Amino acid sequence: MTSLSIWEFHLIGLSFSFCASIMAAATAFFWINTSQVTIAYRATVTITGIVTFIAAYNYFRLFQSWDAAFTLANGSVKETSAAFQGIFRYADWFATVPLLVIELILVMRLPAKETFSRGSRLAIAALLMIGLGYPGTVSSVTWHEWLFGALSMGPFLWIVWELYIGLGDAISKQPPEARGLVSIARNTTVLVWFFYPVVYFFHIGYTGGIAVTIYNLGYTVADILAKVGFGIIIYMIAVRKSEAERRSSGA
Amino acid sequence: MTSLSIWEFHLIGLSFSFCASIMAAATAFFWINTSQVTIAYRATVTITGIVTFIAAYNYFRLFQSWDAAFTLANGSVKETSAAFQGIFRYADWFATVPLLVIELILVMRLPAKETFSRGSRLAIAALLMIGLGYPGTVSSVTWHEWLFGALSMGPFLWIVWELYIGLGDAISKQPPEARGLVSIARNTTVLVWFFYPVVYFFHIGYTGGIAVTIYNLGYTVADILAKVGFGIIIYMIAVRKSEAERRSSGA
Repeated sequence: MTSLSIWEFHLIGLSFSFCASIMAAATAFFWINTSQVTIAYRATVTITGIVTFIAAYNYFRLFQSWDAAFTLANGSVKETSAAFQGIFRYADWFATVPLLVIELILVMRLPAKETFSRGSRLAIAALLMIGLGYPGTVSSVTWHEWLFGALSMGPFLWIVWELYIGLGDAISKQPPEARGLVSIARNTTVLVWFFYPVVYFFHIGYTGGIAVTIYNLGYTVADILAKVGFGIIIYMIAVRKSEAERRSSGA
Repeated sequence: MTSLSIWEFHLIGLSFSFCASIMAAATAFFWINTSQVTIAYRATVTITGIVTFIAAYNYFRLFQSWDAAFTLANGSVKETSAAFQGIFRYADWFATVPLLVIELILVMRLPAKETFSRGSRLAIAALLMIGLGYPGTVSSVTWHEWLFGALSMGPFLWIVWELYIGLGDAISKQPPEARGLVSIARNTTVLVWFFYPVVYFFHIGYTGGIAVTIYNLGYTVADILAKVGFGIIIYMIAVRKSEAERRSSGA
């Protein structure tokens, strides 16, 4: 049983609520602005909004569940009979993390065959990464936490390898107006995704209110960067490439 | 503990509900009418709607929290165990105030580099202004309230300086059909934003029902002016500039 201060209880709940509103707002931005890009990039920008939409939904659920799991009595935070269901984070990641790598592949407009092979390899790696990390998160046995955390790092390193070695050549062949941004998108993915295992391993062995707060705020900030921040870069790539296409077709 | 009359309790709750509905309606207006402006201004008008969307969400939360925090018993208002979470105001401001200055910069269509440098400077100043004011709001120690209020005025004055001295030249170079409105948008920002510290400093030292009512109604009115009123001016600028663009391209 975790003991939370009133301040920690409110801060975590607020962060869920704040993140849900940011994700929903970003969804509207991406979906409305699909009209700004040429047909070739519309699916990509729509998927960018799908990622933030699913995140908005799950953060809303996290907020509701958090609010139901605790009650204030005599100036302190008590657990109710409704357990907090942090599993909504995994429901979110399971759907959105494969889509994030697919976004990056789609916006590059590689040959169809390469898009499919690279996209499916990266999506499978992403699913394995989330799936292997999950047993470690729900376990309270320390060595389980380390074991599944370590197992989950396997697919993560595979993803890093795919993005740098596998995609390196394809990125250097991107049109000049997009090359820098595609490289930034790739680096952002690796850098922000690296933040998740840091939060995960940092958290092992700590159960107090401060650990719970850092764990939840850490993942929430990482989710905003990985989905909204990354999504804006993908959107900018799509806009630039669309402008270049319109110029070259004389439209 | 604040003692509220039934009248004050209902009035504040009603103002949250009213404001949520106005913000949601404004969101629909801005998002639907993105199709009225040329591609160059669509992101700007979308962001205008994002600001009111996030505000609608947080006013909805304020209303829910207000309603849960009090109960009527024997003809008077009693606090429940659920504390009122006025912090949703800060969640709103933290997300929307930087976006408001970015709206103004985007609608001016400055060169890309200047857009980025001025936009990021103003956004950072806005975040500092909100962040420094927050500890003063949650503290009940009078000198803390004055101190953080005063600290928060630093970034506010920096914003005023940026908008008048920094942007003065760029505003005078706006196309004639937009120049007057851009100037009005700038003046509205400074004037309405000045209203927030007035409410803040006025409020210090008062804890009764009337003070709580003025504080909440003051911020609510200011939020409607700063987001919906300001947003309509931004939208009008985007429409006028779009019309001028269409005329000059002979479309």
